[in-house]
Amino acid sequence: MPQSSREVLLIRCTDRPGLIHSITGLLLEKGCNIVSNHEFVEPIDSVFFMRTEFFGTIPSEELKARLAGLLPEGAWIQIHTEKRQKVILFATKETHCLGDILLRHRSGELEIDIPVVISNHKELESLVTDFHLPFRYVGHEGITREEHEAMLLDILSKQEFDYIVLAKFMRILSKEFVSRFPEKIVNIHHSFLPAFIGANPYQKAYERGVKLIGATAHFVTESLDEGPILAQDVVSVDHSFTKDKLMLHGRDIEKVVLARALRFVLEHRGITWKNRVIIFR
Amino acid sequence: MPQSSREVLLIRCTDRPGLIHSITGLLLEKGCNIVSNHEFVEPIDSVFFMRTEFFGTIPSEELKARLAGLLPEGAWIQIHTEKRQKVILFATKETHCLGDILLRHRSGELEIDIPVVISNHKELESLVTDFHLPFRYVGHEGITREEHEAMLLDILSKQEFDYIVLAKFMRILSKEFVSRFPEKIVNIHHSFLPAFIGANPYQKAYERGVKLIGATAHFVTESLDEGPILAQDVVSVDHSFTKDKLMLHGRDIEKVVLARALRFVLEHRGITWKNRVIIFR
Amino acid sequence: MPQSSREVLLIRCTDRPGLIHSITGLLLEKGCNIVSNHEFVEPIDSVFFMRTEFFGTIPSEELKARLAGLLPEGAWIQIHTEKRQKVILFATKETHCLGDILLRHRSGELEIDIPVVISNHKELESLVTDFHLPFRYVGHEGITREEHEAMLLDILSKQEFDYIVLAKFMRILSKEFVSRFPEKIVNIHHSFLPAFIGANPYQKAYERGVKLIGATAHFVTESLDEGPILAQDVVSVDHSFTKDKLMLHGRDIEKVVLARALRFVLEHRGITWKNRVIIFR
Amino acid sequence: MPQSSREVLLIRCTDRPGLIHSITGLLLEKGCNIVSNHEFVEPIDSVFFMRTEFFGTIPSEELKARLAGLLPEGAWIQIHTEKRQKVILFATKETHCLGDILLRHRSGELEIDIPVVISNHKELESLVTDFHLPFRYVGHEGITREEHEAMLLDILSKQEFDYIVLAKFMRILSKEFVSRFPEKIVNIHHSFLPAFIGANPYQKAYERGVKLIGATAHFVTESLDEGPILAQDVVSVDHSFTKDKLMLHGRDIEKVVLARALRFVLEHRGITWKNRVIIFR
Repeated sequence: MPQSSREVLLIRCTDRPGLIHSITGLLLEKGCNIVSNHEFVEPIDSVFFMRTEFFGTIPSEELKARLAGLLPEGAWIQIHTEKRQKVILFATKETHCLGDILLRHRSGELEIDIPVVISNHKELESLVTDFHLPFRYVGHEGITREEHEAMLLDILSKQEFDYIVLAKFMRILSKEFVSRFPEKIVNIHHSFLPAFIGANPYQKAYERGVKLIGATAHFVTESLDEGPILAQDVVSVDHSFTKDKLMLHGRDIEKVVLARALRFVLEHRGITWKNRVIIFR
Repeated sequence: MPQSSREVLLIRCTDRPGLIHSITGLLLEKGCNIVSNHEFVEPIDSVFFMRTEFFGTIPSEELKARLAGLLPEGAWIQIHTEKRQKVILFATKETHCLGDILLRHRSGELEIDIPVVISNHKELESLVTDFHLPFRYVGHEGITREEHEAMLLDILSKQEFDYIVLAKFMRILSKEFVSRFPEKIVNIHHSFLPAFIGANPYQKAYERGVKLIGATAHFVTESLDEGPILAQDVVSVDHSFTKDKLMLHGRDIEKVVLARALRFVLEHRGITWKNRVIIFR
Repeated sequence: MPQSSREVLLIRCTDRPGLIHSITGLLLEKGCNIVSNHEFVEPIDSVFFMRTEFFGTIPSEELKARLAGLLPEGAWIQIHTEKRQKVILFATKETHCLGDILLRHRSGELEIDIPVVISNHKELESLVTDFHLPFRYVGHEGITREEHEAMLLDILSKQEFDYIVLAKFMRILSKEFVSRFPEKIVNIHHSFLPAFIGANPYQKAYERGVKLIGATAHFVTESLDEGPILAQDVVSVDHSFTKDKLMLHGRDIEKVVLARALRFVLEHRGITWKNRVIIFR
Repeated sequence: MPQSSREVLLIRCTDRPGLIHSITGLLLEKGCNIVSNHEFVEPIDSVFFMRTEFFGTIPSEELKARLAGLLPEGAWIQIHTEKRQKVILFATKETHCLGDILLRHRSGELEIDIPVVISNHKELESLVTDFHLPFRYVGHEGITREEHEAMLLDILSKQEFDYIVLAKFMRILSKEFVSRFPEKIVNIHHSFLPAFIGANPYQKAYERGVKLIGATAHFVTESLDEGPILAQDVVSVDHSFTKDKLMLHGRDIEKVVLARALRFVLEHRGITWKNRVIIFR
């Protein structure tokens, strides 16, 4: 008898009556044991979203085919069998986001593999190797963006991975690069988007005299800083917070928000729609 | 043909496979159009919770009987047909919570009727009458608690109502009184419970030097300040906040938290379990 | 012997050593009893800010002249003797911000006079008159902006007032109008500025899929939505919050943030610098 | 000519007129350049608190003696010359708080020395040594509390240190131990104190159905979990957060709150009074 595995089923399709009933009926028929179930209907576009966690023995491809037959045409269906996922980290010079992920990995909180950490600088090499993980330096100076990205792609092509996390990677990736990995690249932006899009958000926040600063984790799309938002948070500040002090406090939100977003994608809690992510917490 | 009405179905029962499928199947069979659906399984006690909003023409009693046949024995089932609900307000001397509800009522945000506002003091009479609502003064001085509550019960017995909201009603209601209205009385407590249970929470907060103060809205049960929590929030404070300044800021959270809790109960979003409320937002 | 009055002294000047010492020395010499004292030095422009509350009998003009002699050239000095201030409210159709201020006024929390409430619509008239306050309807239809503002200015010219509060006044005031009342007009904007500047912020927030929404109270300057920020706050939302539900939750932050900002200006807690406000809480 | 050093002066004394003037006068006379200055008067007990950062060449002992002559009898005066401080860390098995401090130390954000990390378990040894820091295992099993604490004291007696941070050290320290290090031991408690004092706060939070969980950093005093609060924060949760999920989210607040508190003590921003800490941010 086949071993029962933990699965996450994600569905996005045009809404119509009876969807939940027919989907749960199929799962029941196949002997699946539903652990949790969430649905949402987007009221403007009338789109149905569902996330179901279950234990079952039915092969994913068979389930997918049966669901495709049940659901409205054009339905988007994903089935993720629980496994240890692989996450490649990109960083530049800053320790806080990268180190935070490395710690969560080490403590077992994040049950992932980290095949490699890639950086365009050498500053973080000893941190990564002290955590007994492979580090690859891919400098960008003296070469074109295309050449640099070709080197990154070369490394990626030799690794299996589920996600790329930009843990304060301070290089803008080209549309060509990004378009290869849709909904696979998670970035942390050091502002409460859409406020302070672009460079130097802390400087701008200081000049604008805001009373809260924030951080935003989002999927990277071809539109810089405009990808669907996964997680956001803010912290109170006042006039006495210089740019440096804003950065200091901002770092604490950045790393926590990035970790929260990473958990969402690893647990397959998000389904994108237009420029939004429906997150089933 | 009967008019379709908006209904909220709430279910709490022992969990077992197939519940969602059979419940949605019954609703489909009866031609109900599900608008939103939430389920939750409490993992420790293995209890299933479900809230479904739908439009349908099936009489509530018939649906309830059919569901009782489908569900595990002892299932708790409620069906609320959308209607303008009646909420009786109790207050003492403070304006902020009572006035806030009166404003929300007046603006149409809260689509409720307020049959009467009852107070053990006269200070708020002109506020209530300026809002063109009936005010009843029921003083407690010179009489026993039993006599006072008998007078309150007498007024209540002559009114239909769905909920009682204690909008800063500064009298402790007896167990006898409370036990008549289970899950019908909503109170706002001026602290982040379970911190600072009892009297003078702002004074205690000042003395303890806390960095945040809060407010908690909860169902009133026989255990004072211990009823199931509906909503909570906090606001940052610092050492310069005297008791009076804490109260000033506290009032802003109190009224917002109370309004949030009231919305939950009016929209039938909560299902209690032990001393908790499952809130389907 | 003259009666001692409560005064707030505000100073903004170029920083140099010894400022606090010489200012407090002058106050001591004049027999002033300092209740609280705050200073801040803006590190980039090297500007000194100070707010001092004291009881004293020295006439303001004399104190101002003596301070001008002590302080660096070009020092900005204000002395506010405690008095009941007058605040004119502008509103349009929405109840929540206007009603909240009226309630705080009525309860005595806000110790102000409200000479008149002005609106470009008639919807709020009964609310204002039920609070026993004068209401003036100044419709804008069928006339030019200049004509409309001339009517507003005519009313203002016949009233003494300290501040104008735009409690959801949904008309853009011209630069000419605004420039007459520098740091006298407080507005509440229904977004966490600088995110979602301009119209329809809740719609934009929905489309952008943000995880927090906010409100911003600011001084009105000639640059729309760009004036110095007095107060801001946010509340968590998720994908299930439609535009209407965002507005519902947004209103609760709007009114609380506006009240907080109003308290800051009434208590003379803010000193502007460039496009910021230094708030001494 | 002596080198100018950065100093933090802390004063707590009975309030009386002229304190700021005479203190700043003395600093001016001695050629000190004040960088920032904060005062607070506790209104109930009429106690004056002041924190002044300045650059100067006057020896601390001389300044302290001069101040003692100026200030009311019994004044508490501290002068901290800027230096690299030494912080000893105590931990047990959990990675998040310890690792977070180690990362901040490594990145240079925390400019401290960590003479030793002490644990009553061996789990964290490799983490500490991978960060190239000394680790001391002091097991508590099979010996009495007195014997265990004697071993800890023995290590402490051989080290210079400014503070001890209990980074999730899951042992209760005796009154005898604690009383040796007043205002020198910082602890992180995994709840929003005073809610859920004692053991298992996440379990209690789950059972109580709270809508927010928090963390509290405080000085350790002889009263367990009752010491003066340095920093607190909260995060929203809902009914679906099991104890494990509460712990996961709680850890993110714990480490951030602990780091914030550590920054306060290292920068000498706190002055205790009764059971509170006045924090000059």
